Amino acid sequence: MTNRIRVTVWNENKHERTNPVVQAVYPQGIHGAIAGFLSKCPDLAVRTATQDQPSHGLSDEVLQQTDVLTWWGHLLHEAVEDAVVDKVHRRVLMGMGLIVLHSGHYSKIFRRLMGTGCTLKWREAGEREVLWVTSPGHPIVQGLGECLVLEHTEMYGEYFDVPAPEDVVFISNFAGGEAFRSGLTYRRGAGKVFYFRPGHETFPIYHDPGVQKVIANAVRWAAPTGTMKLEMPCKEMGWFEQAPPTSR
Amino acid sequence: MTNRIRVTVWNENKHERTNPVVQAVYPQGIHGAIAGFLSKCPDLAVRTATQDQPSHGLSDEVLQQTDVLTWWGHLLHEAVEDAVVDKVHRRVLMGMGLIVLHSGHYSKIFRRLMGTGCTLKWREAGEREVLWVTSPGHPIVQGLGECLVLEHTEMYGEYFDVPAPEDVVFISNFAGGEAFRSGLTYRRGAGKVFYFRPGHETFPIYHDPGVQKVIANAVRWAAPTGTMKLEMPCKEMGWFEQAPPTSR
Amino acid sequence: MTNRIRVTVWNENKHERTNPVVQAVYPQGIHGAIAGFLSKCPDLAVRTATQDQPSHGLSDEVLQQTDVLTWWGHLLHEAVEDAVVDKVHRRVLMGMGLIVLHSGHYSKIFRRLMGTGCTLKWREAGEREVLWVTSPGHPIVQGLGECLVLEHTEMYGEYFDVPAPEDVVFISNFAGGEAFRSGLTYRRGAGKVFYFRPGHETFPIYHDPGVQKVIANAVRWAAPTGTMKLEMPCKEMGWFEQAPPTSR
Amino acid sequence: MTNRIRVTVWNENKHERTNPVVQAVYPQGIHGAIAGFLSKCPDLAVRTATQDQPSHGLSDEVLQQTDVLTWWGHLLHEAVEDAVVDKVHRRVLMGMGLIVLHSGHYSKIFRRLMGTGCTLKWREAGEREVLWVTSPGHPIVQGLGECLVLEHTEMYGEYFDVPAPEDVVFISNFAGGEAFRSGLTYRRGAGKVFYFRPGHETFPIYHDPGVQKVIANAVRWAAPTGTMKLEMPCKEMGWFEQAPPTSR
Repeated sequence: MTNRIRVTVWNENKHERTNPVVQAVYPQGIHGAIAGFLSKCPDLAVRTATQDQPSHGLSDEVLQQTDVLTWWGHLLHEAVEDAVVDKVHRRVLMGMGLIVLHSGHYSKIFRRLMGTGCTLKWREAGEREVLWVTSPGHPIVQGLGECLVLEHTEMYGEYFDVPAPEDVVFISNFAGGEAFRSGLTYRRGAGKVFYFRPGHETFPIYHDPGVQKVIANAVRWAAPTGTMKLEMPCKEMGWFEQAPPTSR
Repeated sequence: MTNRIRVTVWNENKHERTNPVVQAVYPQGIHGAIAGFLSKCPDLAVRTATQDQPSHGLSDEVLQQTDVLTWWGHLLHEAVEDAVVDKVHRRVLMGMGLIVLHSGHYSKIFRRLMGTGCTLKWREAGEREVLWVTSPGHPIVQGLGECLVLEHTEMYGEYFDVPAPEDVVFISNFAGGEAFRSGLTYRRGAGKVFYFRPGHETFPIYHDPGVQKVIANAVRWAAPTGTMKLEMPCKEMGWFEQAPPTSR
Repeated sequence: MTNRIRVTVWNENKHERTNPVVQAVYPQGIHGAIAGFLSKCPDLAVRTATQDQPSHGLSDEVLQQTDVLTWWGHLLHEAVEDAVVDKVHRRVLMGMGLIVLHSGHYSKIFRRLMGTGCTLKWREAGEREVLWVTSPGHPIVQGLGECLVLEHTEMYGEYFDVPAPEDVVFISNFAGGEAFRSGLTYRRGAGKVFYFRPGHETFPIYHDPGVQKVIANAVRWAAPTGTMKLEMPCKEMGWFEQAPPTSR
Repeated sequence: MTNRIRVTVWNENKHERTNPVVQAVYPQGIHGAIAGFLSKCPDLAVRTATQDQPSHGLSDEVLQQTDVLTWWGHLLHEAVEDAVVDKVHRRVLMGMGLIVLHSGHYSKIFRRLMGTGCTLKWREAGEREVLWVTSPGHPIVQGLGECLVLEHTEMYGEYFDVPAPEDVVFISNFAGGEAFRSGLTYRRGAGKVFYFRPGHETFPIYHDPGVQKVIANAVRWAAPTGTMKLEMPCKEMGWFEQAPPTSR
């Protein structure tokens, strides 16, 4: 099957190597868990990459062969090399989809794409979260009911310092009193970006069937649909085209 | 002072005339309460209109002299005359601001402007609501902190069947587990529309200083800023202009 | 093949029956032309319906079996029965896609869904239109270059009195000096709506391969992706659900 | 008058010092021209700053006293110090308004805030541009008619690689056949950003009364309206707050 969507599941892979509690929840790592349930979808071709690999596992070749990249990081955001962030950024603008998960909100690549601080509040109290669907016809909620319930979660609270999203797909209620915009879509260049809040290194969020369904839906939604070349000099019309920036 | 914003506070005025509990909370009616706190703003010129008046208090003259209309209704939405709805609709498209409050979400004028069913869930349990600011630079939240807390409210829950708003200014957490997009901005023609969730006939929501501040801010935000004529025939360019529909 | 997208191509069918010039351009009617090129897509199951048929060809059964409806009308908007508009409206909110073409901008169903006057300027001078892509990753522009050129068109000019769209997919340059937002996406309830400007009864717009590609892409984009029920009473949580309005 | 909006007009100031043609059009520099017409507004307190000054004229003190910053640059974008960009960025997120003019689209600060490449097409043929209003109730078009006509301009063409704006206020028609989204609003943190296309170093765009009106309107629209603190630790609710990034 040659036209499967090529997914690269990226993970910082730090908690898993140092914390037995995390190892117990995610014996194959968070990347292994995510790749595991995505691999069950026959329309997806899944590989993984981790921060501890050379070039963080994201060589030019891997990126060229990636339609959608999922991103999980937490402790080592600042240690991600700028050169890799530059390449991922360029690929998103050219059409690669990007799914940013949970604490990935504070990654270099997400902050770069948002242009804001991406700060938020948090509390680790294992409290109940209910994610309510606010965009019922969106492909990302296909097959869901009107809400997802997660019994034990880390709270994320507003103000979440991101640009106004193109679509707010979920808003969350936390038992402690907060609310949060938990599923947000953006377009950057030809690339689609989805931020999805749930996830944690010790709460077993990525084993939840509803969360798995959302991530699989999001991968399909974010897959490149166009091949429009973004820079097209056209002598006949007297245009000049700007070369994209070589540095930020 | 000639350039004050001219506000008309509209109310169904039914609960207040039939229910002693409501009379105790709002002895001047809900319209009287809202007009009362708005009248304390020196930049606003406030009058009221109620559904039981001729033409529901919204004669051509009143509408022509209204910069911003606030709308509260609940029991008698279907009894509002279509001819009045038509006129209010036309005025909004020409630039009049409209602030729709609480159960006004199901009014004819709001459903007309939204083009959707405007349905939602509700529960009257007197539960706690926290409204979180999600658009911190918006004029509507000027002077607020990061949230508003209302101890006893009627719950409104998603899915709220409205179009994706231009800005989500607040999202609410309800103690019972729901979340709701509680402050929504729209533009329709040259007119600005703000939906604000809080409010009830027996919970004394409109006595809350934070709620009062939001409504006053919203009136200022929704005041007409342009005088652009929407239909402008221009023979010289060979244009034809469509007359606006005389009926829907 | 059971999971093809079921498309109903709707047409007013008036010009074609009275004007030999239109008959020459569209011998099978505008609906026949659109159904013709859509039928070449193996993933689409296409039928037609016209205003002159009983119930305008849109019986309950037809609507129930329609995933995406395309709409072309011009002379007889006001003659479309409100009862049919009500049913189409309800179906859109429940998830049916709607593609509104050219002068369909002034149809009852589009005005109902928009909540605005939907007026614009026009000029029939057979002038050149260039549609520029402003949302390069959108599924609707899949396979296109950076623009579409139509040598002879009817001009549509701003201000186009519609709500701010969720995405502006195309903006047009007209040789006479105007610009226009020519491809606009909206969500209403669970339904997706796309307005696409090109089209005319005598200019052979629907024979253009680029226009055909856009309409086919739009049909796929607008196909229902969710099955979320919009009204879900839930006794356990103490909710009440609003019945959708039985009249506007 | 203590509550005037404090505007800092920033300019690269390179063309003006090296090109006699530019000196003839803008004898006080582009910054002098912009500061000149803004200074005639009694509600604005205007100063200028240029790239050739220490810290590019944007010391901490100047930035602290700036409500709205206007930005014009062209030749020397890459020579703007990252430390200054960092400070401007932070100020925008905290609420300072930013008006980006013409070739400022490719400045470091705009690219930082957008998260995209910000590339476009251009042609210097002195052709006619008509900017059509697409958001008639917006404060930025207050006092304008339905379009602005500029007889001799540099063309900017799509695809303009920026995120979908919150509002498209103008779209342009160029005589050569292109169209462009020419007035775009964004919110980033508590700050408002407006990109306005017209402007050039030799075409006397900033002497045009309509252009002047738009820039003055935009300054008022972008002035900070809130004082919400973005980072608020709250021990009582068990929150942790993320410190904003110290580097990108």
